Amino acid sequence: MKALVTGGAGCIGSELAAELLARGAQVIVVDNLSSGKIEHIDGLLKDSRFEFLEADLLQPGAMDAALGGVDMVFHLAANPDVRFSPGDPTDKDLQQNTLVTYNVLEAMRRHRVPKLAFASTSAVYGVAEHLPIPESAPFPKPISLYGATKLACEALISSFQHLFGLQCWIFRFANIVGSKVRKRGRTVISDFIYRLKETPCCLEILGDGRQAKSYLLNAECVDAMLYVVEHARAPLNIYNLGCDDWISVNRIADLVVKAMGLPHVQYRYTGTEAGWPGDVPRFRLDVTALNHLGWKAGHNSEEAVRIAIHAVFEALEGKVEK
Amino acid sequence: MKALVTGGAGCIGSELAAELLARGAQVIVVDNLSSGKIEHIDGLLKDSRFEFLEADLLQPGAMDAALGGVDMVFHLAANPDVRFSPGDPTDKDLQQNTLVTYNVLEAMRRHRVPKLAFASTSAVYGVAEHLPIPESAPFPKPISLYGATKLACEALISSFQHLFGLQCWIFRFANIVGSKVRKRGRTVISDFIYRLKETPCCLEILGDGRQAKSYLLNAECVDAMLYVVEHARAPLNIYNLGCDDWISVNRIADLVVKAMGLPHVQYRYTGTEAGWPGDVPRFRLDVTALNHLGWKAGHNSEEAVRIAIHAVFEALEGKVEK
Repeated sequence: MKALVTGGAGCIGSELAAELLARGAQVIVVDNLSSGKIEHIDGLLKDSRFEFLEADLLQPGAMDAALGGVDMVFHLAANPDVRFSPGDPTDKDLQQNTLVTYNVLEAMRRHRVPKLAFASTSAVYGVAEHLPIPESAPFPKPISLYGATKLACEALISSFQHLFGLQCWIFRFANIVGSKVRKRGRTVISDFIYRLKETPCCLEILGDGRQAKSYLLNAECVDAMLYVVEHARAPLNIYNLGCDDWISVNRIADLVVKAMGLPHVQYRYTGTEAGWPGDVPRFRLDVTALNHLGWKAGHNSEEAVRIAIHAVFEALEGKVEK
Repeated sequence: MKALVTGGAGCIGSELAAELLARGAQVIVVDNLSSGKIEHIDGLLKDSRFEFLEADLLQPGAMDAALGGVDMVFHLAANPDVRFSPGDPTDKDLQQNTLVTYNVLEAMRRHRVPKLAFASTSAVYGVAEHLPIPESAPFPKPISLYGATKLACEALISSFQHLFGLQCWIFRFANIVGSKVRKRGRTVISDFIYRLKETPCCLEILGDGRQAKSYLLNAECVDAMLYVVEHARAPLNIYNLGCDDWISVNRIADLVVKAMGLPHVQYRYTGTEAGWPGDVPRFRLDVTALNHLGWKAGHNSEEAVRIAIHAVFEALEGKVEK
């Protein structure tokens, strides 16, 4: 199999590329390195079955050169900043999520690439009335630009699948965490660690701390994707990807504080129910379909967060010491 | 009230503009006349409360000049060609539906226009498992580019509503028919009339003729939109707009043949279940929410179709005789 991974220099994409290589595939990574990092794929570059193409998928045809003989595209390239902050351009998600996905679909159609796996998000559901949220949840009303534009991607994929006969897998991710250190502010774990390194006496927590979400380790996310692609055989396959529990932001703060060995940290809250505008304060995915297919997360949310805290903390320490 | 109607030179938009004027509003129509026609608003141009701006909403800022003092936007501009034919560009709907809607939302945000009504479509639902389809139907999988890109519009509206505090009304239209003659091939009624004028002995019917859909008259559609905007007061209001029954394509053919007074017309079928790729063969909208709000269609699907046949036929005769 020859696989192309968009966003393959990102935290999840690079893990997926490495795993695909380990399982015997040829792998092409396409990434514009806007948030992906070349360090993430450094170890893969010497493999003769690996190729890297630096390209911006907002340019139509950007990945044409790489599509020859490709059997399957794993489309993970996206705007990784889930948060919208006042003053940000309002079309960043539209461009980097929706338009890029259209370009990928159109390139696949033209080059007759038959299979697509897509990294979607639990943010497509918006604020669900009932938890846990199954894949067939009522008609979604996303509340973030990120969630809205990922829903737009799903809709395009659904129509391309029907019209042009692709086989597609859409994965609605829980919060994915791992050892790779993300840009400050992008995940709650590295955010807390950075803040506590600066001011170990107190920690500002966005929202009221009672936000609760499902977490899944990077490596498990990759394993689940590959498992589902192998075992789910419908023309259009849609799966929630996560574990069956959740963990609160307050509990994550406690775990970070404990891991850093800090005594007497005072929490200060910004006070709203949501951490930021567009944040879904509480979500838990129904992963029955995934479990029935035969895949179950090896770690629950707290374990995943705990492992990620230690990995990120160590990675940061390593960086500091260099 | 000062209202701006995008796509206001179209079949539905021009009817809406006229009705808004009749109810005392100031009205600005923005249209690029790509499918809208100046004849549709000819009668309104002399009204001092009416303004027409020819502009292409794909250009960001195209409607900025018209937004001063506007209280509400009725966004009806869209690609009116629901069908995708092999060889068509695959991004026409993405551009004319999704990107245009983003431009409208962003212009409204910048100019602080507080209210938006949006013409969506029953095509967002894709092929529903259960009929009739309520607004809260399970997570949609659109099968046409038109439906997918309208769903993308809804998602953007939902997120803008949440983030920037607009008040929004999303209307999922049944098939809207009326006296205005649409471009050949765009609706089944004018399609049949054109074909039978050319070859009165036989009629090619796309699909197997058993496709069945809900129809609503143009004037009723406009009346329903204005009723719902006045009576539904949530921040985000989503309503199916139609009547509670449906009519088959075969029955429409019979009605057209009868109206034209043709004897012995032979039907030939292209044979597939759907009329064209991306066509949803059978849909019926659940209009309970609309009815409970206090609005009910005055004509059922067959009556609406019958009225539209006669109106279109007369309009065409008039044209032929000129």
